[in-house]
Amino acid sequence: MSATIAFVGLGAMGSEMAATLAAKQWRVVGYDRRREAIDRLVASGGHGAASAVEAARGADTLVLMVVNADQAEAVLFNEGALEALKPDGTVIVMSTCAPERIEAMAARVEAAGRKFVDAPVSGGVVGAKGGTLTIMAAAPQATFDASRPLLDAMGSNLFYLGQKPGQGASMKIVNQLLAGVHIAVGGEALAFAERAGIDSKVALELLSGSAAQSWMLKNRGPRMVAYDDVVASAVDIFVKDLGLVLDAARTLRMGLPLAAAAHQQYLAASAIGLGGEDDSQVIEVYRTLGGKPKA
Amino acid sequence: MSATIAFVGLGAMGSEMAATLAAKQWRVVGYDRRREAIDRLVASGGHGAASAVEAARGADTLVLMVVNADQAEAVLFNEGALEALKPDGTVIVMSTCAPERIEAMAARVEAAGRKFVDAPVSGGVVGAKGGTLTIMAAAPQATFDASRPLLDAMGSNLFYLGQKPGQGASMKIVNQLLAGVHIAVGGEALAFAERAGIDSKVALELLSGSAAQSWMLKNRGPRMVAYDDVVASAVDIFVKDLGLVLDAARTLRMGLPLAAAAHQQYLAASAIGLGGEDDSQVIEVYRTLGGKPKA
Repeated sequence: MSATIAFVGLGAMGSEMAATLAAKQWRVVGYDRRREAIDRLVASGGHGAASAVEAARGADTLVLMVVNADQAEAVLFNEGALEALKPDGTVIVMSTCAPERIEAMAARVEAAGRKFVDAPVSGGVVGAKGGTLTIMAAAPQATFDASRPLLDAMGSNLFYLGQKPGQGASMKIVNQLLAGVHIAVGGEALAFAERAGIDSKVALELLSGSAAQSWMLKNRGPRMVAYDDVVASAVDIFVKDLGLVLDAARTLRMGLPLAAAAHQQYLAASAIGLGGEDDSQVIEVYRTLGGKPKA
Repeated sequence: MSATIAFVGLGAMGSEMAATLAAKQWRVVGYDRRREAIDRLVASGGHGAASAVEAARGADTLVLMVVNADQAEAVLFNEGALEALKPDGTVIVMSTCAPERIEAMAARVEAAGRKFVDAPVSGGVVGAKGGTLTIMAAAPQATFDASRPLLDAMGSNLFYLGQKPGQGASMKIVNQLLAGVHIAVGGEALAFAERAGIDSKVALELLSGSAAQSWMLKNRGPRMVAYDDVVASAVDIFVKDLGLVLDAARTLRMGLPLAAAAHQQYLAASAIGLGGEDDSQVIEVYRTLGGKPKA
């Protein structure tokens, strides 16, 4: 009998990750608050459940791809998914959470006799769909080894950061620092080009092939120079994620001036009503405050 | 009789650009204040001159790859290289200069009957050596067309930004905004990883393959995590270049919070004595102020 994977949190990335597992013949039982997300997983070859607890009941592994640590704790401890899992089951948290929250979660999961893998991801919807995510895992060696086939099915770049849950979360936070600053500075540069009278499409083409290139500029830049209503990841995700970056740095007593400046730009984008828009729209903060092109 | 190219400014990049032209059978007469730079060009198949004026005398084209606009103006107008050039000769300025300085220079060159091409570059010593630079050109169409074979010999990514000298310089400034911020934030992220107890070499490998990737992180990151005495481009170059970025934005009345924050980090690096070190060493500002790793 093959292993059963309970998958809770079928958002933009989670739904693609669960569908990728189902396509690779894993038995996936999914749950999300939105009924249509469950229906999509079923259409992709997965199974649906009426609650997180029902999904977790008797499963070997519970994957959490919910929005944040609060939701992960609610599912595990308040709703009871942890107790529903097999007695020797494994919990894998793939959401972006503060390292100390992951440490605390791991301690409670292990106290209940289950295993815990800290495994946040990078690569967005495209990486989730293609099974090419970067995965930043931390867990005791034996637990990591046992979870490896499942993690390899979701990501082609699997990194083992260490034995201690929280080390993956710390790495993800460093990743988000760069990702968030690269998007914001892409908006700063393209809005400045517009303001200086340069065709921003020509500027983007040039910058995408020069030493100024970044993955985020290539990915988000086209939606900065020509509006598109696709929301790959929302402005408010970086309000949250750069907030986690700055909280973690404050705990360690370390100043991060660029991350702090970028966070202000996402906050401003959210303030002018763009919190639910694609994060590329942080460029609108620069356009709003950038004045009129010089005559 | 083939055209003669006078090349003034044989620094780290200029010497490779001049040698690339000589290797492609252009007749290059080079000058630099440092005698050994001229000797190296001669050893690469070029010719040497005793002064900028001597290099320019009777040449068809004068390429300037000096440090800044002050040096370009000194060579052209004070030392007399402009008057030494053929009556219908062309001046190509490839240094990074403020757009308004380039506009003023072009006007004086054209008033003396010569043609002017604004053509700054990106791609560093590697691009200069391989002839794969990104070139951001602006000049009247006929002048650009006539200079095209020479520019194509130095760069594989030639962009035509417009008819007006200064438009290339503006584009270069946008490029430097991204390049300078990407290096500084790379230092911020890697120093933060170290502080959080993550192996910075593992972090760099992971970040270089994730959505956090940038050209600068891949290029400068290895010299951040393991010191190397190579100076590809110095900290003080970004003190200058981000200064030009912020001056241009101030003229246009536009705030650039990320560029301003990054500029402060390069200034701090210069303040602690690292102005002549490789720009990757901006990470030392974070290490100096980052405190001790948590026990």
